[in-house]
Amino acid sequence: MRILFAVLILAQLVFAADRLTLLPVPASAQTSGADFALANGFTIKTDGYSDARLQRAIDRAVRRMEARSVLVLARPSGAPAFIVACKSKGGDLPQLGDDESYSLEVTAQQVVLTSNTVVGAIRGLETLVQLVTPTSKGYVLPGVVIHDQPRFAWRGLLIDVARHFQPIEVLKRNLDAMAAAKMNVFHWHLSDDQGFRIESKKLPKLQGMGSDGLYYTQEQVRDLIGYAADRGIRIMPEFDIPGHSTSWFVGYPQFASAPGPYQIERRYGVFDPTFDPTRDATYKFLDTFLGEMAKLFPDAYLHIGGDENNGKQWTANPRIQAFMKKHRLETNNQLQNYFNKRLLVIVKKHGKKMVGWDEVLVPGLPKDVVVQSWRGLKSLDEGAKEGYGMLLSAPYYLDAMMSSQQLYLADPVPATSPLTAEERARVIGGECAMWGEELTPANIDSRIWPRNLAVAERFWSPANVTDVGDYYRREDAVSVQLEHFGLQHIAAPDRALRSLVGSSDVPAPVQVLMKYVEPYRLGLRHRLFEVRQTEQTPLTSLADVGNVDQPATREIVANVDRLLNDANFTAGAAGLQATFAELAQLDRSYPPAASGNPALEKAIPRAQDLAGLGRAGQEALTIINQNQAVSATWLSDHLALLDRAAKPTSGLNIGWLQSFRTLIFMAAARSQYDPLTQKQWREKVTADAAPKTVHK
Amino acid sequence: MRILFAVLILAQLVFAADRLTLLPVPASAQTSGADFALANGFTIKTDGYSDARLQRAIDRAVRRMEARSVLVLARPSGAPAFIVACKSKGGDLPQLGDDESYSLEVTAQQVVLTSNTVVGAIRGLETLVQLVTPTSKGYVLPGVVIHDQPRFAWRGLLIDVARHFQPIEVLKRNLDAMAAAKMNVFHWHLSDDQGFRIESKKLPKLQGMGSDGLYYTQEQVRDLIGYAADRGIRIMPEFDIPGHSTSWFVGYPQFASAPGPYQIERRYGVFDPTFDPTRDATYKFLDTFLGEMAKLFPDAYLHIGGDENNGKQWTANPRIQAFMKKHRLETNNQLQNYFNKRLLVIVKKHGKKMVGWDEVLVPGLPKDVVVQSWRGLKSLDEGAKEGYGMLLSAPYYLDAMMSSQQLYLADPVPATSPLTAEERARVIGGECAMWGEELTPANIDSRIWPRNLAVAERFWSPANVTDVGDYYRREDAVSVQLEHFGLQHIAAPDRALRSLVGSSDVPAPVQVLMKYVEPYRLGLRHRLFEVRQTEQTPLTSLADVGNVDQPATREIVANVDRLLNDANFTAGAAGLQATFAELAQLDRSYPPAASGNPALEKAIPRAQDLAGLGRAGQEALTIINQNQAVSATWLSDHLALLDRAAKPTSGLNIGWLQSFRTLIFMAAARSQYDPLTQKQWREKVTADAAPKTVHK
Repeated sequence: MRILFAVLILAQLVFAADRLTLLPVPASAQTSGADFALANGFTIKTDGYSDARLQRAIDRAVRRMEARSVLVLARPSGAPAFIVACKSKGGDLPQLGDDESYSLEVTAQQVVLTSNTVVGAIRGLETLVQLVTPTSKGYVLPGVVIHDQPRFAWRGLLIDVARHFQPIEVLKRNLDAMAAAKMNVFHWHLSDDQGFRIESKKLPKLQGMGSDGLYYTQEQVRDLIGYAADRGIRIMPEFDIPGHSTSWFVGYPQFASAPGPYQIERRYGVFDPTFDPTRDATYKFLDTFLGEMAKLFPDAYLHIGGDENNGKQWTANPRIQAFMKKHRLETNNQLQNYFNKRLLVIVKKHGKKMVGWDEVLVPGLPKDVVVQSWRGLKSLDEGAKEGYGMLLSAPYYLDAMMSSQQLYLADPVPATSPLTAEERARVIGGECAMWGEELTPANIDSRIWPRNLAVAERFWSPANVTDVGDYYRREDAVSVQLEHFGLQHIAAPDRALRSLVGSSDVPAPVQVLMKYVEPYRLGLRHRLFEVRQTEQTPLTSLADVGNVDQPATREIVANVDRLLNDANFTAGAAGLQATFAELAQLDRSYPPAASGNPALEKAIPRAQDLAGLGRAGQEALTIINQNQAVSATWLSDHLALLDRAAKPTSGLNIGWLQSFRTLIFMAAARSQYDPLTQKQWREKVTADAAPKTVHK
Repeated sequence: MRILFAVLILAQLVFAADRLTLLPVPASAQTSGADFALANGFTIKTDGYSDARLQRAIDRAVRRMEARSVLVLARPSGAPAFIVACKSKGGDLPQLGDDESYSLEVTAQQVVLTSNTVVGAIRGLETLVQLVTPTSKGYVLPGVVIHDQPRFAWRGLLIDVARHFQPIEVLKRNLDAMAAAKMNVFHWHLSDDQGFRIESKKLPKLQGMGSDGLYYTQEQVRDLIGYAADRGIRIMPEFDIPGHSTSWFVGYPQFASAPGPYQIERRYGVFDPTFDPTRDATYKFLDTFLGEMAKLFPDAYLHIGGDENNGKQWTANPRIQAFMKKHRLETNNQLQNYFNKRLLVIVKKHGKKMVGWDEVLVPGLPKDVVVQSWRGLKSLDEGAKEGYGMLLSAPYYLDAMMSSQQLYLADPVPATSPLTAEERARVIGGECAMWGEELTPANIDSRIWPRNLAVAERFWSPANVTDVGDYYRREDAVSVQLEHFGLQHIAAPDRALRSLVGSSDVPAPVQVLMKYVEPYRLGLRHRLFEVRQTEQTPLTSLADVGNVDQPATREIVANVDRLLNDANFTAGAAGLQATFAELAQLDRSYPPAASGNPALEKAIPRAQDLAGLGRAGQEALTIINQNQAVSATWLSDHLALLDRAAKPTSGLNIGWLQSFRTLIFMAAARSQYDPLTQKQWREKVTADAAPKTVHK
């Protein structure tokens, strides 16, 4: 009975979420059908606790509702239509464990938002903005009762501003979008080999020599902390040590494990410079710096990095080797653990809790360190079992260029998790990570959004909200709403393409090419470039233009899947025909369109690959449709074509090759269908087409 | 002989300008055919005067060249490929009369930029960036010798930040674009009835009570002045007095001509509040304020507004009337002149030259006031004759939504000017004016650019550079380049449409509708809205989305013109057929696409108008092509259709109605063609179709 009731609730929830366009999906939502009609004039009343922060949040929400509806809503007259009933302030600033719950009730007469804290009201206001719905009777708020709270308490986004600096206004618009998706932690990766991006007044050579002048002043930092707090977002700074620290040593070489001088690192990768953990002066220096930062950043958590310290400088330094022997530290890992323990004393002294990447997770690590896993669920589970508070980032690296679907279905505590309930509770949440090697202010938004919405929902909504199709429906609508904040995620690819073409009129073949390709993931991209990439490489090539998770790719994948599952061999075929027809001409139409433009000409081989795939796809569809037998060489010829298309030509990745491979094997196996069941045949084709290791 | 030589020079100049894509066109440019090939590594050397400002300008230019070519240009090794030979510093800051001339010589081996001043070098660097050209042999700088200097010394853009506040980053990207177009004055309209937008430390109630908290701090102002100076742009502040001053009186009602209290004005138009010119306290107050501002703004010029003072408060105030009698001031104009003269003493005392709108131009105005004409050439010419330094703004109001062509062909000193050489020299230049009633940070760029390029070229290039077709070719290319600065002028309309539609997938009929309509000019727009517009009206309606100077409008106009001038009645007909076919379906396709979306549904009547025009256009083309006679009612029916289409439905203006009217009269008169010459017939049709007064 209890189970039946739960299923019933779930069904209703899915129905409501399906009609509504809320993202993240609330914990519970029941629609009533009695919608509230929006009109000019929409008097707002706060009933209970109120302060300037809440008022600003209300004002922002109303302005966004006005922008979408072209109505003038906030007018100080008439009976209140919208009541914000906030019970108490909550913390002065957002903090881990805040009560973020809220209820929102929309009737035909009134809208009531109830929360225990201002942060809860801020979350509910975001839901309210998303509720604005156009209908033929005007804009409405659908009648609904929502009770909502997050699944995980820590829902973060890391932005690396060290590899490429990002101006404050870029961060602000991303904070707005995070708030719209109910994320609550901005993890600010402020230092790395390639740059030291924050002003220290006590150690001014840090930013003075380590940043090329591209850093945030403390005044800007305080302003951004306030901006984030207004949106219920904590800011946790990261100062990555002992490795990833070249930029620190440009001004202060004496704290490195090898003699200087040091230069700001322009290349990308893992480098040798690392702090000398054997000298008291190092800890005094870090004490000074972290003490200053602990005062500047009000959040309880401070991230000390700890990743990818290769230890080469330690191994090469006889004094450090002697120190290790004396203190019975047998490995560099043990030496880093020694460093971390001394660091923890400093961090605690300044009133902060320490967070580190999962390399810090070695025997002897004090239990009050929070560990962020970038290496995977295994590491996360281990940490949780050992008693550490854990954050998951491994599956959420945005520079890995995975689709929203892939990000969406990765769960910090999946149904298959081996953790006990107690251990599960130690998984505080997770973070998306946006590393900065390939980012500029012009493209960063398109690398974060809309995909970050998938993870935001994963962290907020109930674990059983996993309908990918419905997610994508809501992703598109909410993605467009995010443009209100000045985000460039939708506009950027078109703009970048115009810039390469040199005209607002981008030739159709160039548009077709870009529709079917995607950028390569960071790690692979690095190895592709003709010249080794550095901080100074312009990020304006065709390889930088494209968008991840292209709708055309998703469509091909879905259509091949439909075809594979249809005993009549018709589902999906028309869509695939249209796709392949568009591609089959590309080797004739693209080269003249690209001619005379070096940046476009580089993609001619890829246009030829796509044309070949288009024609092969047409053949495959004919074979499947007409149940033709294929020649002995047909399969091998087409696999060779696939191999060529899988090579990282032009920096343009074809994201749908595995589905295409399935289609080719379907054609090759078509004549073997008859004795099998549809299921058997599908399994055979799937096994035949099982991926080889390709560049992706 | 001399004339022939001049024609030859001009022909070469036009050839060079035609091959190149420079905007503004340089005073002189000779191409050589020996292009400089850009490649990774492009060593730069300064030869002569150099300083940090010049280095920053070089760095910015090289970064932009890199972004366009995807090359890494600046490398400190090898023989210098690019020599910047700047002879002297010039002023510490840009000022009126700066030597902005430069020469740029590109050979196959080297690029040499020569200038007398840093500002000259900054201008030349902009030309260099525009020279980057893709070819099938890679990116090149075309071999060329350019000698360039501006036609007018004052080439400005006014931005009104009072009606709607614009964040500093919006201003910065517009300053970048101004510099790319070689404009040199940013006229900052900082106060008006609707807002007081700058911090006064001495009179803090100005921004404290008059700005809703939306104002620039003095630190931001200083930063912006430096940013502009780096780009060779002066910043002239305007404090509009005695009228347009409601926001001043919110904090300081005692200086108004009628008792307070005052509120920030939310509506638009001309309002009564005005300074009391009869009290010494007023001048003391203005002395304090202007003294503070004179220190903050280093430029020699200070604009005191002076426009649209309706004088009602003066007329209604017996004390002021008595004062006028006593001082023998018979009119409000004379009283304002009295005010201006006392103001001038203050402005001069603080070391500034005074600028005012042309209302200040009354008998007795001291000759050292510079007058900016917003009322027309007549007023400009009068001022110049009387001996005043003059600026023209009348034809360059960007909110009047004129096309680039219209802006481009308006000349401060046209060939028909009645001014003598000496009087012409008094026309210092001009300014575009971007008034703020309909602006948001999201749409402002699209209202300024690319049209501002037309005026920038008018102010810089020789007067005989007037080829509209070539201008548009260059406008498109340079407009795309401006996106590098983060300008949203091309992206904004699409984004706004996505927002209204609520999806990234804008239905095709909506796209077709928006292709053929334009926003109404400010003055008319105000009268159209259902609710009277205020500062708080969301500027996100369909009427706000569209772009001015639509290519489709230009195409219709050009095609009708071709058809009218072709004795065979074929030129332009195919293009018009395609246009009308696209429109003729709109009454069937648009309503379902708009259904359920109130913002889109509002435009259904306009979609119906367009469909009617499409079908009528098809009929007209058939009549013209087949030399049919038309029925008695055909013309009147179609003129009725035009009348409907000319009504300001939905806030969407159809910009090509006059051309359509010509087409209709061509059809009506087709059967009368035979006895006439082509020229006679063309004249007849043109006279028949002469515009009636319509809403535009």
